[in-house]
Amino acid sequence: MSDAWRQFNKGVWTKEINVRDFIQRNYTPYDGDEGFLSPASEDTQYLWQKVLVLLDEERKKGGVLDMDTKIISTITSHGPGYIEKDRERIVGLQTDKPLKRAFQPYGGIRMAVKAAESYGYKIDPSVVEFFTKHRKTHNDGVFDAYTPEMRAARSSHIITGLPDAYGRGRIIGDYRRVALYGIDRLIEEKEKEKSTTRKIMYSDVTREREELSEQIRALKELKELGAIYGYDISHPASDTKEAIQWLYFGYLAAIKEQNGAAMSLGRTSTFLDIYAERDMREGVYTESEIQEMVDHFIMKLRMVKFARTPEYNALFSGDPTWVTESIAGVGVDGRHMVTKMSFRYLHTLENLGPAPEPNLTVLWSTRLPEAFKRYAARMSIETSSIQYENDDLMRVTHGDDYAIACCVSSMRIGKEMQFFGARANLAKCLLYAINGGVDEISKKQVGPRYKPVTSDILDYDEVRSKFSDMMKWLAEVYVNALNIIHYMHDKYCYERLEMALHDKKVTRWFATGIAGLSVVADSLSAIKYAKVRAIRDEDGIVTDYEIEGVWPKYGNDDDRVDSIAYDVVHEFMGYVKGNHTYRGGIPTTSILTITSNVVYGKNTGSTPDGRKKGEAFAPGANPMHNRDKSGAVASLLSVSKLPFMDAQDGISNTFSIIPGALGKDDEIYITNTGNCASCAPNEELDY
Amino acid sequence: MSDAWRQFNKGVWTKEINVRDFIQRNYTPYDGDEGFLSPASEDTQYLWQKVLVLLDEERKKGGVLDMDTKIISTITSHGPGYIEKDRERIVGLQTDKPLKRAFQPYGGIRMAVKAAESYGYKIDPSVVEFFTKHRKTHNDGVFDAYTPEMRAARSSHIITGLPDAYGRGRIIGDYRRVALYGIDRLIEEKEKEKSTTRKIMYSDVTREREELSEQIRALKELKELGAIYGYDISHPASDTKEAIQWLYFGYLAAIKEQNGAAMSLGRTSTFLDIYAERDMREGVYTESEIQEMVDHFIMKLRMVKFARTPEYNALFSGDPTWVTESIAGVGVDGRHMVTKMSFRYLHTLENLGPAPEPNLTVLWSTRLPEAFKRYAARMSIETSSIQYENDDLMRVTHGDDYAIACCVSSMRIGKEMQFFGARANLAKCLLYAINGGVDEISKKQVGPRYKPVTSDILDYDEVRSKFSDMMKWLAEVYVNALNIIHYMHDKYCYERLEMALHDKKVTRWFATGIAGLSVVADSLSAIKYAKVRAIRDEDGIVTDYEIEGVWPKYGNDDDRVDSIAYDVVHEFMGYVKGNHTYRGGIPTTSILTITSNVVYGKNTGSTPDGRKKGEAFAPGANPMHNRDKSGAVASLLSVSKLPFMDAQDGISNTFSIIPGALGKDDEIYITNTGNCASCAPNEELDY
Repeated sequence: MSDAWRQFNKGVWTKEINVRDFIQRNYTPYDGDEGFLSPASEDTQYLWQKVLVLLDEERKKGGVLDMDTKIISTITSHGPGYIEKDRERIVGLQTDKPLKRAFQPYGGIRMAVKAAESYGYKIDPSVVEFFTKHRKTHNDGVFDAYTPEMRAARSSHIITGLPDAYGRGRIIGDYRRVALYGIDRLIEEKEKEKSTTRKIMYSDVTREREELSEQIRALKELKELGAIYGYDISHPASDTKEAIQWLYFGYLAAIKEQNGAAMSLGRTSTFLDIYAERDMREGVYTESEIQEMVDHFIMKLRMVKFARTPEYNALFSGDPTWVTESIAGVGVDGRHMVTKMSFRYLHTLENLGPAPEPNLTVLWSTRLPEAFKRYAARMSIETSSIQYENDDLMRVTHGDDYAIACCVSSMRIGKEMQFFGARANLAKCLLYAINGGVDEISKKQVGPRYKPVTSDILDYDEVRSKFSDMMKWLAEVYVNALNIIHYMHDKYCYERLEMALHDKKVTRWFATGIAGLSVVADSLSAIKYAKVRAIRDEDGIVTDYEIEGVWPKYGNDDDRVDSIAYDVVHEFMGYVKGNHTYRGGIPTTSILTITSNVVYGKNTGSTPDGRKKGEAFAPGANPMHNRDKSGAVASLLSVSKLPFMDAQDGISNTFSIIPGALGKDDEIYITNTGNCASCAPNEELDY
Repeated sequence: MSDAWRQFNKGVWTKEINVRDFIQRNYTPYDGDEGFLSPASEDTQYLWQKVLVLLDEERKKGGVLDMDTKIISTITSHGPGYIEKDRERIVGLQTDKPLKRAFQPYGGIRMAVKAAESYGYKIDPSVVEFFTKHRKTHNDGVFDAYTPEMRAARSSHIITGLPDAYGRGRIIGDYRRVALYGIDRLIEEKEKEKSTTRKIMYSDVTREREELSEQIRALKELKELGAIYGYDISHPASDTKEAIQWLYFGYLAAIKEQNGAAMSLGRTSTFLDIYAERDMREGVYTESEIQEMVDHFIMKLRMVKFARTPEYNALFSGDPTWVTESIAGVGVDGRHMVTKMSFRYLHTLENLGPAPEPNLTVLWSTRLPEAFKRYAARMSIETSSIQYENDDLMRVTHGDDYAIACCVSSMRIGKEMQFFGARANLAKCLLYAINGGVDEISKKQVGPRYKPVTSDILDYDEVRSKFSDMMKWLAEVYVNALNIIHYMHDKYCYERLEMALHDKKVTRWFATGIAGLSVVADSLSAIKYAKVRAIRDEDGIVTDYEIEGVWPKYGNDDDRVDSIAYDVVHEFMGYVKGNHTYRGGIPTTSILTITSNVVYGKNTGSTPDGRKKGEAFAPGANPMHNRDKSGAVASLLSVSKLPFMDAQDGISNTFSIIPGALGKDDEIYITNTGNCASCAPNEELDY
């Protein structure tokens, strides 16, 4: 028994890799208020001030302070980097200097070159040559396998945001394992896993054995990363400082290796609180010392940056990394999981000021303790920097050790990962149904040559049935494109380190997405309940619509149209499920465009709901702007009718409420600060 | 219709890629003698003299004249290289200088580094770093996936010569297609193939689509290679010179891209003769001009060299490349396929003198014309540089457009390829059967812990039945190791160009091999018909044997033992077939160690046939040395009883006959000049 585990309650976690068991047996729920919290230390203030200056310089330089142009980022590619070594409690930077962007070409060399050039940097030609001639990238692989139909669907934006030129992200390594077990134990476990693969060398077994070898190699490199900073992380962390540091090294290794669209952190606060409680009991550290470590840790997470193209950043008004940390929630045994560390994490918004990253996400339950609810609410009001997710809903299927990747994708930590898949534009799909597969903007035949609608007045049954056919086609093209993408990502840009911090048996979610849901629902409702006339251009393509009469609109708790939205989601998901998915991925769907809805709308012609060509869609599952006339509750009720079982990857509803609208000032406010990075429509990134 | 095809008889070959159809409709069988042949031209003599000087310098420098240490060999990696430009009719070198070895690390960077170091060269460290950190090689992939059992079987030499550290070779591109169709047409065909893959993106479909894209890319590079030498090979070759040059560019691209253990040429002479006949009819070239082109072409093939380790070369007393060219044979319509070009190829042995490469292989049939038989026989006697293969046997299953890869592996050109797989040491397997899976030399438990033989006197039924169990185990480990190897070769060292010169639908032979057959047959015979006493060492391991009595020996046309050999081959092949094979490979076996039998013997303990520890095995399917006491015919009859249907990849019988032993001097002599490169036991190459 390791001395690092002194005082901890034992359980199966000592025999097997089982962080959840460790947490459940050892954490201390905290029902008190924020009174115990410590302010920022002098070192914290000094360091953060220095970072702010650097961030300011970065802005002034046009967005990038410095950039590697020759060293290819790996876990061990750089020597140690510091803000100011002697003042840092938690150390480790992506490169050798703060805010210096790493060079990460595995996802696509052209993308990496373009990102550098956009900021006036030039990647070393010998490296470019190497990645062009000898080391294929994910992006190259994907485009080698795409069919002309997939390319056309992509170019016409009926499928969009595919992660074919950037890292898919949305995989959360269980970074806590590094702290609890140390690297040697994790390697030992992976060796065991390798010794128990199936024995017949089918290609998937060979792949698995190679991947396990790569995982072991990545863990050894992670140990080396610790050594670069002067730490021996082969053994378990023995106190809070080591626990935070070990955990952060794990995360740091992941972002050194992968430039994923969403590199989320997991659910670390309650885990770390166990170390803090012990250290406080043992008198090892004071509260202010522990807060200082947390502040320095969060400071590092705020500095996570990737080299991306300005188009990518413009789309998201920034440089999002989605370092999402999931806080609080309730255990399946009924105890809430709020600890002092939950407070300390949120308190960084005071000690360091507001910030969009890390994306602090409260797993909300009605059963969270009142004091925490109030503190979180206050922090939300003061900083607009907290995201909330419905734990009561997700706990049912995901238990109490899941976390959010990116903005809403929930997964059991170390046991599940996601093949991220951007989204299908169902509004455009409806137009294809009407025009027999011809794109209403380019006039090209993109979809199948089905019979178009030829009448002037649209008939609901006819349109609805043609829409079914077209959704079926779209689901097939979409899922097969994703099959190619994830095959190639595994082949050319495998997440060695992140997967090393997963169990051998991993459930893979095959995430699809839907854009334009409310446009579709309203369009079909208009066709059904009003009179919609098709306006055709000189080529006979329907390019606009005229509506006569009134018709129910999604977002007013009106089942006539809400049921259409429900049926469309359920039906599309059925078609998705009808396809083969790579690596046994379990299909799911999300409805969560948050800012990219603007771009989807830009690329979609006029729709039968009266929305004109180029006008933005509503975000996520939101009702169209200004159509939810029956009040906030009715609007929320419409959204809540959508089938979560079909869209377990998340349904987003961007909803702003003026303080006071819901009653007393200290009520909870619904806030959404997010721009979903991994939902990036990559039209602009098209090679 | 291309002017390049003027006068040719049309057929399906004009509509589809079908070189065989072109040949059959256009070739002119030649029944005459060698009287028409022309001597070496002045330029030929000059050039060859220059090459001989370079070869001499190479020997003096210890085996390598010059070597690339930074430029990674690709189809287009080098500018043009010449012996002496103005005198060369056919141009193209592997690098920019004659005999300068190319740097080819895709198969394994450590191997490439070691090969360079052996000759005093040092690979550029930045390239080594790149291939270590960012560009995985075949060798790395294989060792990541091997099981401990496979490693043990490999280390103990019960499985040996696995192509896990070098290019598998034994794939013949149909280089004739380049000449007949030109690159543009071949690209068009590959684009068509890509448009007709299956539509559901299972991983194998994705892989196929990516491979077809790579093939198209390779063809474009091949066109660029032509341009580097000043030729536009986008269109079909229009005369003999272009036909030879286009064809050679195809082959040159293959060897620039792949350092395969056996890079064979195919069956090109009768194809090229069609161009020569037309040019002679049209008065475009004279016989001496055509012979000069052939001489220069063959000269280039003689200069093919790879950077290999001295261990590899020592094993084969040289630097074998297996540029095997298959000549003559008989068509399925009964016409022999000897043309004037068949003579011209053999005549290079006179014009340039004898040489082991290219490996000129006559596809022998009783129905070849007498004059050609006599000429080939004379060339054999004078140069010892011709290999013979039994066309009458192979034509039955392979038709009339197959060729030999390496020494005996026959495949339909452009329609079949081979996953080369070295061999299993059945003699050692027999010892494992006796010792319950314990290696008789290392004393380690390598095989399964089956019950060993415990009696002093070996009982045939017991040993035979234990041998069956052990063969079954061995076949499983062996085939699964090969599954890994070929998966990784496709992943990290895919033969883009060679496969671009194949049909889309390719039959893949999954080639296994057997070593020590006659030792096994004789051992089992001794146990059955004499009395064999096991001698055990202090650990109880049987390490030697004493035989009392007489017993029939393989190689004397004695069915008592020949049937044992037959049964072992048939049974082992049955076990091989019982396993899953990568990519639908069709299992086959060869029995063809030619020099490596010495090494196999070195690593095998004493056997029950009286052979002592470390003594060489007989080569291939040969009887053990000096045991075939019943004369040459009886010895050949024993070998001929082996089941060819189980060992279609080839059975070799190394057989030397003193001239006169068979009768008149101008009879055919059986000659074997070969050392099978791709049968390399890579013990020495073990990383």
